[in-house]
Formats: sequence, structure tokens, C-alpha cells
Amino acid sequence: MIQFQCDYNEGCAPEILQRLAETNMMQTVGYGMDPICDHVRQLIREACQAPEAMVQFLVGGTQANATVIASALRPYQGVLCAETGHINAHETGAVEHTGHKVLALPQTNGRISADQVRQALASHFADGNAEHVVQPGMVYISMPTEVGTIYSLAELTAISEVCHEYHIPLFVDGARLGYGLASPACDVALADLARLADVFYIGGTKQGALFGEAVVITNPALQRDFRYNIKQNGGMLAKGRLLGIQFETLFADGLYMRLSQHAIDMAMRIKEALLSKGYRMFIDSPTNQQFPIMDRKTYERLSQSFLFDFWGSVDDDHVVVRICTSWATKSENVDQLLGEL
Amino acid sequence: MIQFQCDYNEGCAPEILQRLAETNMMQTVGYGMDPICDHVRQLIREACQAPEAMVQFLVGGTQANATVIASALRPYQGVLCAETGHINAHETGAVEHTGHKVLALPQTNGRISADQVRQALASHFADGNAEHVVQPGMVYISMPTEVGTIYSLAELTAISEVCHEYHIPLFVDGARLGYGLASPACDVALADLARLADVFYIGGTKQGALFGEAVVITNPALQRDFRYNIKQNGGMLAKGRLLGIQFETLFADGLYMRLSQHAIDMAMRIKEALLSKGYRMFIDSPTNQQFPIMDRKTYERLSQSFLFDFWGSVDDDHVVVRICTSWATKSENVDQLLGEL
Amino acid sequence: MIQFQCDYNEGCAPEILQRLAETNMMQTVGYGMDPICDHVRQLIREACQAPEAMVQFLVGGTQANATVIASALRPYQGVLCAETGHINAHETGAVEHTGHKVLALPQTNGRISADQVRQALASHFADGNAEHVVQPGMVYISMPTEVGTIYSLAELTAISEVCHEYHIPLFVDGARLGYGLASPACDVALADLARLADVFYIGGTKQGALFGEAVVITNPALQRDFRYNIKQNGGMLAKGRLLGIQFETLFADGLYMRLSQHAIDMAMRIKEALLSKGYRMFIDSPTNQQFPIMDRKTYERLSQSFLFDFWGSVDDDHVVVRICTSWATKSENVDQLLGEL
Amino acid sequence: MIQFQCDYNEGCAPEILQRLAETNMMQTVGYGMDPICDHVRQLIREACQAPEAMVQFLVGGTQANATVIASALRPYQGVLCAETGHINAHETGAVEHTGHKVLALPQTNGRISADQVRQALASHFADGNAEHVVQPGMVYISMPTEVGTIYSLAELTAISEVCHEYHIPLFVDGARLGYGLASPACDVALADLARLADVFYIGGTKQGALFGEAVVITNPALQRDFRYNIKQNGGMLAKGRLLGIQFETLFADGLYMRLSQHAIDMAMRIKEALLSKGYRMFIDSPTNQQFPIMDRKTYERLSQSFLFDFWGSVDDDHVVVRICTSWATKSENVDQLLGEL
Repeated sequence: MIQFQCDYNEGCAPEILQRLAETNMMQTVGYGMDPICDHVRQLIREACQAPEAMVQFLVGGTQANATVIASALRPYQGVLCAETGHINAHETGAVEHTGHKVLALPQTNGRISADQVRQALASHFADGNAEHVVQPGMVYISMPTEVGTIYSLAELTAISEVCHEYHIPLFVDGARLGYGLASPACDVALADLARLADVFYIGGTKQGALFGEAVVITNPALQRDFRYNIKQNGGMLAKGRLLGIQFETLFADGLYMRLSQHAIDMAMRIKEALLSKGYRMFIDSPTNQQFPIMDRKTYERLSQSFLFDFWGSVDDDHVVVRICTSWATKSENVDQLLGEL
Repeated sequence: MIQFQCDYNEGCAPEILQRLAETNMMQTVGYGMDPICDHVRQLIREACQAPEAMVQFLVGGTQANATVIASALRPYQGVLCAETGHINAHETGAVEHTGHKVLALPQTNGRISADQVRQALASHFADGNAEHVVQPGMVYISMPTEVGTIYSLAELTAISEVCHEYHIPLFVDGARLGYGLASPACDVALADLARLADVFYIGGTKQGALFGEAVVITNPALQRDFRYNIKQNGGMLAKGRLLGIQFETLFADGLYMRLSQHAIDMAMRIKEALLSKGYRMFIDSPTNQQFPIMDRKTYERLSQSFLFDFWGSVDDDHVVVRICTSWATKSENVDQLLGEL
Repeated sequence: MIQFQCDYNEGCAPEILQRLAETNMMQTVGYGMDPICDHVRQLIREACQAPEAMVQFLVGGTQANATVIASALRPYQGVLCAETGHINAHETGAVEHTGHKVLALPQTNGRISADQVRQALASHFADGNAEHVVQPGMVYISMPTEVGTIYSLAELTAISEVCHEYHIPLFVDGARLGYGLASPACDVALADLARLADVFYIGGTKQGALFGEAVVITNPALQRDFRYNIKQNGGMLAKGRLLGIQFETLFADGLYMRLSQHAIDMAMRIKEALLSKGYRMFIDSPTNQQFPIMDRKTYERLSQSFLFDFWGSVDDDHVVVRICTSWATKSENVDQLLGEL
Repeated sequence: MIQFQCDYNEGCAPEILQRLAETNMMQTVGYGMDPICDHVRQLIREACQAPEAMVQFLVGGTQANATVIASALRPYQGVLCAETGHINAHETGAVEHTGHKVLALPQTNGRISADQVRQALASHFADGNAEHVVQPGMVYISMPTEVGTIYSLAELTAISEVCHEYHIPLFVDGARLGYGLASPACDVALADLARLADVFYIGGTKQGALFGEAVVITNPALQRDFRYNIKQNGGMLAKGRLLGIQFETLFADGLYMRLSQHAIDMAMRIKEALLSKGYRMFIDSPTNQQFPIMDRKTYERLSQSFLFDFWGSVDDDHVVVRICTSWATKSENVDQLLGEL
């Protein structure tokens, strides 16, 4: 069975395993205070053109999201987010577990707009009885979104401007950030993101690392005591250097973007083949997640050889599946898939 | 600089790295639902002689502690624990962050006694105004404790009996469990622990894994929906097989206990040398953490070559340091230390 | 200015003030353990035909909601509720503050249906990846709803059946319960509610008391240690007898329903006058809240003499206002309003 | 049975009941936004000589404590407090329920010292691994303490100075504040408290009101959005004017201090009689709580006519009881007690 159902089916880029082996018996202090972590912090700051940014490493996305959000909000504040946002739909209430409401907004292709954000903020702060309602205290977006779409530079700039007008931070979940940046449709660079967001993370788990997300905090107010929050939320890895080693390998010579590019190349081959064979797409995604609509018979036939993520039914005869590529997707597996479409 | 300051200075047992390399491009489903995790669950159940136990893997100790405790308690309940217990002293309030008070009891050499637990429970439930006070809802102990001591089978049995008499679970933090089990002073076996505790974990991070703790839940009431709690607390690793692979390697052929034994052998060499040279010990520890008292000049001299954990001052002229050995401690480093004592 | 904007504009039924004066210097123990509270508990159990119910008194609605919900749910569970439900829309995230997500469902005239509840539950528990999503652990409805509508006995029975089929409790917020029970459109009796809900409350604050909600818990599992939860949530009134005295006065001889009936009589006079004068109603409410649509000029004219709750704009020329009557509404104020319509 | 076991046995000062009756059918807006609340805010600011202070009314002490503390702390911070402090010992973990650890310090006669606070703060912030430990973010003291003692102006000033040196707020729980201020031993005035504390409250529940605590926030940083916190913690009374009416009555013409003085006069009569009859006192309290040591026979004899709060056993033959006076203590009841001593 060939697995296309997610982008964390395999281990990691072989370069990382090799570097783990090389450094294995080296002795370092714990908790991310070692020289490797310090080095990769510098690499990431340079890649982001954000020399004052704080860079901290967490193990996974849910942990990173809850830690960043709980760290930034006051108790009565909530976080604005698309109703399909990962924190609203797929994290078992991790944000609410820290005491905060997720303020879900209707989404369009996984995105929310600056106008929606402005309206939510304006309407809250115009209300004389605002204290009876959760105060929006942060905006969370995903880039790419949970359905593979991306924000344009203009959209991102507009959201950032609204946030800053209302003095609330913009947080960008970049669990698949590389797959966004590598998309031919993307006009946002890493330095743009660092400039427009107050805090974001560069995903490792889905992007070639064994695990790990690099949280980049450009807003100084959010940097204060952030490591206390990591520890309190159970996110401070004892052997923190494991995160440093992985991100150092990914960022030392451009490996991160090469791996991202591979996933996009594989996804575009699949997308073009699907379109050329007349499949309709549920969402027009320019990144590593593709959402073709199939008739059930095709779906059942393909399911004998391939594992997809079942996304939902369109009608009695048609379903949507998610096909994910990743840094690890083998070209011959794509060949085989295209052959059977 | 040779580091003896903690038991997570190095990477992992080479066998684990090798197994990670072998399985690297294998495709599996995520979140610990893969066949490797299932296999090692079975291995651990067998090692524990607990065929009905649930085994779940978490990344680190603070996360494991907070997840287990928050999962077991009702909102108004707290957890009894030694004042030196890790959850009370070193986790930045992770338990309180989930809404629960840590009910600290005075400790003796890092331990609490069944009598203390009984008195706390009896006194709470005898009080007509009990509802104005946090209800003890769980007992947490560490084995070995934070100062390297261990509970005897008789002590553990007595604590377990009190807990069950009052219908509250006993939770054993086994972050260094192997170093306890391998101690010549220990009369507790893994199966005893599984029989006496309602939930405990087998530490990986400090015991030869890159990271990971295997939570073993023998009490069926605590098994229900436990994986929701893992996810909500940010502890569900996407590539869960990484935890499976590590524990499979450790448990497949006795590697876990061999590594533990090595750390104990190294610790006993250091302890005997210290005692024979007339050093007094702050605590008489039979495990991998040793706490010699040194005069400051000796401490300063040794600190030029060795990194210890500074534990505190005894008087103007004497300090206590913690010397940790681990699965990774090199015999030649111990030789060098003994030479300079 | 005559105030119709809410149902807590005045103090309390004069009988309550008189009884407070009579008992003022009587000495009692605190926290609701006094004989008056015990007596009224018995009165309420009888009124509910629920001889085994626990009755506890809390000061206000938000407190009662958060305490009941936090007390019933496990950490990873959330509460299903209409998107207009008070806990979702007007309590500043009090439920989330206790760690739980409010799972909002689309509403129809303020109500949710048994089918919606069944679908949410069935869909959650059918999902193999359910642990990545908040588990629905309770259903919350308001009776009457936030827009004055009520559930029929058939609707309530159907929701109760779904809840019990899935072994989750049904919680009914009865902040305005009397105004529902007294409505000519209502076929639900207090005993029906006690039979169908696992926990509900009989509102005092909006129904003739100075403050206070009587929480009735019929499900024994929810009774256990409930008073700990009250205390922990800051809801245990030191002079608990104040709540007992108020509810004793309301329930000793039918005062509660007489006061409720008065509010309904006043509301029906207003509703009939509005309809007869050609006003359209935004929602067809059979209880003490009425929602007429007015053109802006009329609204501005009436606002010189009357205070309404501005509910929203319908279009450029029309608005919706909420007109509330209560136990305290003076007939002459209604006369004056009708005169100016 | 004459009750001396607490200071909330009776209703309220008759002047309050009368004022409630006079204002009963007056219509006001809710939630403490009415003119009466505004008026009494001004009275309290004047009494405190704190023209910029925010004054908010909450129903009870546990609620006030949890709301103030949760509002002031960042997630990883805890509150320093005497181990006997009400928040640590008698509130069922209400503070921990909001996610924060209570950092208990050893007490002397219910008090902590500026030196203790300084040491706790200095030791935390000197530690390079501070992020593994809860950060002290506030100091909580009670005035009078839970055992009736008071802080001198010098002690209070010293604690305040340490807090401000470390930029953390000082919070004073004044549930019995009047009984402290009225004590002949007290050299602290209300204005001193307002000057030295960042936030404190003036107790009503135990001081002649039916219920209610007036929270005074002098530190502007703690004023921001405080009402959101009140609402979120279930502490925003719908008929907020009830709190305004009570405190207006207490503060309009000095009633609060007259009632306090009465309680102190009664307590001093009892204390002097006890001392003159040779009773020893467990604690030398200058306020309305007295803690005589009695032999068990005397205790049993007195318990036939009087209700005391049993405080604990001293030895096999002797016990400590708490005798509380209050604004409501009848002189003839004191006479009878003195007659039977």
C-alpha cells in the first residue's frame, strides 16, 4: 500500500539522521541552551532577515499553537481564526484547555480576510457591553491553510495592518510553511512573514524533520518570559539539541527549501494529471495537498493500492479525497498513481 | 569539559539510531497507531506482567505528569506529593496550569510515607467542612526520587494500600525507573510496580532514548479516553512511531536494563571512591545520582575539568553537588574523575 | 425614562424584603447549611416531583452555568449548545475559562433540535480519529431561550432521549424558567423538566428575587461533590440563608408562578397591541421578551420615553428592539407604552 | 444556642435593609453601571484618598481573590502568600483552578515578612534555571490575617517596597478590613493601604452587609479590562446596584467604622475577661477573632450554650476555639458568655 494520506508518513531527511549519528555522544547542556541551538537560531534569524527575533523550538504543532496563544492572551481574550483553522477543528480543545475561546470566523477556501478581522474587532470594541463577550486578542491564520491554499502578500499585509491598528498580534501557523513558500503561486517570502507577523513558526514535522517546529517571535512584547510558557506547557525538550540539530541541517545550506520544492513538484505532477484526465478539484490548491473529486468506483479501485485521506462525500456517487505529497514522496509512487488514475 | 551534571547530556543508544535509519523511509500512519507502537505495547505489557494495561507514549516527563494528573482528577481535586516532587518543584506549575493544586507533604530523603498519605486523606475526609479545601484525589511519587533514593517494596505496598482504601489512584513517575530497578538496593520489580500503581511511566529520555516516556495504565478507569487527553495536552507526536521504535529497541532484548545497569555500575564506582576518600554524602543514594559534600576549594578545582549540578551550600566552606551517571557515561571519564578527587 | 430593556431593572418581590427583615438578626450557620435552605430544598424537590434531587443555590447565571458544566465534563469534553446560547454569546468565555470548548450548533429561533444533537454525537463517535476533536460531553439548552422561545414537551423529550442514548447529561438553563412555564404556549411542567433534564436551574434573579439561581440535580452522578465545585468557582455564598430565604418566599405559596404570570400577562398585552397596530415581530416569542421590528423614526421617538434593548438593524430604515416585561412591570407603564406605539 | 463561631451569622445592618426597601422599585441598568454604584465609588475613592482608583464590587471573598489574582498574573506566575492564607487553605483551590500556583511561605502569627518576600523573589530571579520554576508574580496578604493579627504600618510599607522593587503588585485581602482598622493596635489607615497596596478590598460580607466586597485598584495596569475578568469569573451581579446600595449605606456617614468599632469593643471585653480569668490565648489577636485555650471540660460545658469554631487540640486536655464577634454581636450575649466562663 502506497501512502499519500498525510505528510508525516516517513521518518526524516537522511542528512538529519546522519547528523544525529555524528553528534550522538557529544555532551551538551539541556533544554535548548546548547551551542547548536544557538547557531541555528542565528541561521533562522538570518533567513528571516529578523536580527532581533527570538527563536524557540517546540516538538509539535498543537503544542506550539497552545503555548504561543496562551502566552500572548490575557484571560478574557480569545483568538480569531477560520472555522477550519487547525486550533478550532483538530486539536481537541487544546486552546480552550488553556482557558481561551477560539473565535471562529467563516472561511473561504480555508482563508479569512482582513475585512472579516476588521469587522470582528470593530464590532467588539464599538459595543458598550463588550465586557460580556470574549475580547479578540490575537489573529491566528495558517500558511498554507488546512486545505492547501495560501495567502497572497497583499492579503497578509492587509491582515497584519488591521491587527496592528487594533494592537493585537498576528500569529501564523506554518506547520507546512515550506510547501507554501515553494509554491509557484506564492508571492510571500520568509522575510515578509517575519515582517508582517508578530509570531509564526516554521514547521519541521511535516517538512523533513523527525519532529519540531521553530517558533519565531518578532514582537518583543511576546518574547518576554516565553520559555516559562514552553516549560509550563510541557514543551521544553530535555535534549533540546535534537531540535537544534534538525533545524541546523535543514537551514545550513538550503535543504529546507529543496525538500519543499520536491513536494511541490510531485504535487503539481499529480494535479496536472488529474486535471488533464478531467477530474474536478474540490479546492484549487497550489501546494502539497490536492483535493480531487472522484466517483466512488474509482475511489474504491485506487484504494486497493493507495491510502488517501477521505475528505467527505459530495453526493451519492462522488467523494473528495486528500492526496498529500511531501519531502519524502517517491517519484515512482507518483508514476504508479498517475498510471492508475 | 566532562559533563556529569545530568543524565541527558548525550543523544541515545546507538542501537536506536541504527533502527531509526533502517525504518526511515517506511511508511506508517501517525499518532502512535502504527504496527511498531502496537508491538512495543505488547512487549511492555509482558515486561510488566500486565496483559490488560494500556501503554501510551509521550515525549517528555513534564508533559506525561501533567497529562496523567489532569486526566485522572476531578476539578476540585489535588495531588498529594513530596514537597521535593518534580511536579511541585521543577515544572513551572504545569499541574496548576491544568487547574489542580499540588498538595505538598514534607519529605524524608525525597520520599513520603504511607502514614503521611493516610493522615492527609483521613484528616480531609473526616472534616465536615471538607468542601472548603482541595480534596486529595491522587498520590504522586517518584521512583527513584529526585534525590536518587528508592521506595522499598514494603513502602510501595503500604502506599498503594492506603490509596486503594481511599479509592484514589497511585501514580509513579518513573523518569529514571531503570536506574532504580537496576540498583542493588532495590527489591521492587517492574511487575510489582505495575501491580501496585494505577499508572506509572517508564522513562526513556534519561535512560538511553532520544526522548520519550512510556505511560502504563493498569487501572481501567484511567484508560478511558486517555488519548484525548494526550492530544489536548499537546503530547500526541505526529510521527508516533519514533517513540515506538525507541522503546522497541530498548525492550526487545533487555537493552533497557543493560543500559541502566551500566549507569549504576558507574555511579557505584564513584560513590565508593568518594566514601573511601572520606567525602560525606548529603544523601545516601543507591542510584545514578550521587550527592557528595565538598569543600569549596575542591569544588572549584574539579569544576575546571568537570561540570556538576550545584545542589546548594552546606556552610561557608562546603557545598553539595549532584554527580549523575547515565547509560552513556564513559568509563574513562569516571577514571579521570576518580583520579582528580 | 421607563425601562423595558431587561428583566432585572428593579429589586425584588416585596414579600422577600419583608422576610429578610423578619429573619435579619436570626443566627444561622453559613454556606447554605442552615435550616431555611434545607426547608426550601424540600419545597423545590416537591415542586419538581423529584424526591431524590440535590438542590443547591448559586448567586447568578454565569456562575451557575460555568460551575455545572465544569463539574460535569472531563477535560477533553465540550458542551453542545445553540450558537445563540448564553454560554456561547454572553458570558465572556466563562466556560472556556474552565477549560472546555463550547460546541456551537446553528439555531432556529434560539433552539436546537434533537436531530442536530444526534448528528453531532453520531458523527463524533463514528470517527476513527475522534480523539483529535473535542468530545461532546453535555447538551446545554435554555428554556426559554435567549430570544424568548420555548421548547415543546415533545422537543425536550426527544433531546433528552438522544442525550441518554449517548450517556451524556442534558443541562437546562432556566434563568427565565417561570416566564416559560407561565406562557400559554408551554406544555412543559416543572416535573417534566426534572424528569427529562439531568440538571437544570430555576432562575431567581430575573424572576422576583434580588439574586439567586436554584440548581436542581436529578442525575446522581452529577451530585457527587458538587459543593466542592461551587466553592472552587467562587459561588458559595457565606450567608447562604439569603438564597434560602428568597426561594422559600417564592416557593412557599406559589408566589414564583404568580409573579411569572404577571410578566406574561404584561408581555401578551404588548405583543397583541404591536400586532394589532401592524408591527411585525422579528421572532414570535410566547414569553416575556418581545422583539418588534420598528422603523427608525418610531424607535427614536419611543426612545425619548422608554429604554429598550437595541437588538440590531434589519435594513437601513428598520431596527429590532427587545422589550422585556418582568414580575415588576407596572401596568401603567405598559398603558403608556401602548399609548405611544 | 448563641453563635460566636463566625462573623457572618446574621443578616445585615438594618440601615441597609431599609435602603433596599426604599430603592426597591426604582429602575436602573444592571451590572454595576447604575448611578448608585457610581456614587459609592466616589465615596470610597474619597475615603481612600485615591482619586484615580478603580472601585468594583464583587459578591464574595473567594470570588474576589480568584478574580484579582487571575487578572494580574501571567500564566506561568504564582502568588506568594502565607501558608495559612485564605487562598491557600480555605478556597478549594480556586486560584489553582484559574491556572496559578499559590507559593506558600511559612507564617508567624498569620503574617509573612518583607524579608521572606525579598528572599523568595531574589532567589527566584537569581536562578539561571528560573524558567523551570513558577515565577512569583504577586504578593497576597490578609489584613487582618486569618488568625486576627494585623500588619503594622512599618511592616506593610516594607512589603510594599519589596514588591515595587521587583515590579510585582501587592494585593491585600481585606475581608475583615474594618475590624483591623478599628483595632486599638492598628496604626494603618485606609489611605495608607490604598497608597501601599496595588489592589485590595474592603470587606462587606463580614462587616455588616448582606454580602459584597469592594475591590479598590490603585495600580492603573491592573485596572485595564478588569470588568471582563469579573464577568468571566462569574462575579458580575446582574442587579449590581445591590452592592452599590449596601456600600453606599456603609460609607455615606461612617457606618462602616461604627459597626467595626462595635465588634472590636465586644471582642476586647471578651479578651479581657478571658485573660483576667487566667485563660491563655493561642494567639494574641487585637481584632474581632479571639483564640482562647480551654480545658476540654470547660469547652464541653460552654458548648451547651454557645457555638464556637473548634480550632484544634493543644494536648489531651486542652483545645483552642475561635470566638468571633461582629457588627451584630449583642452585648447581652457577651454578658452571658462572660458569666459562664
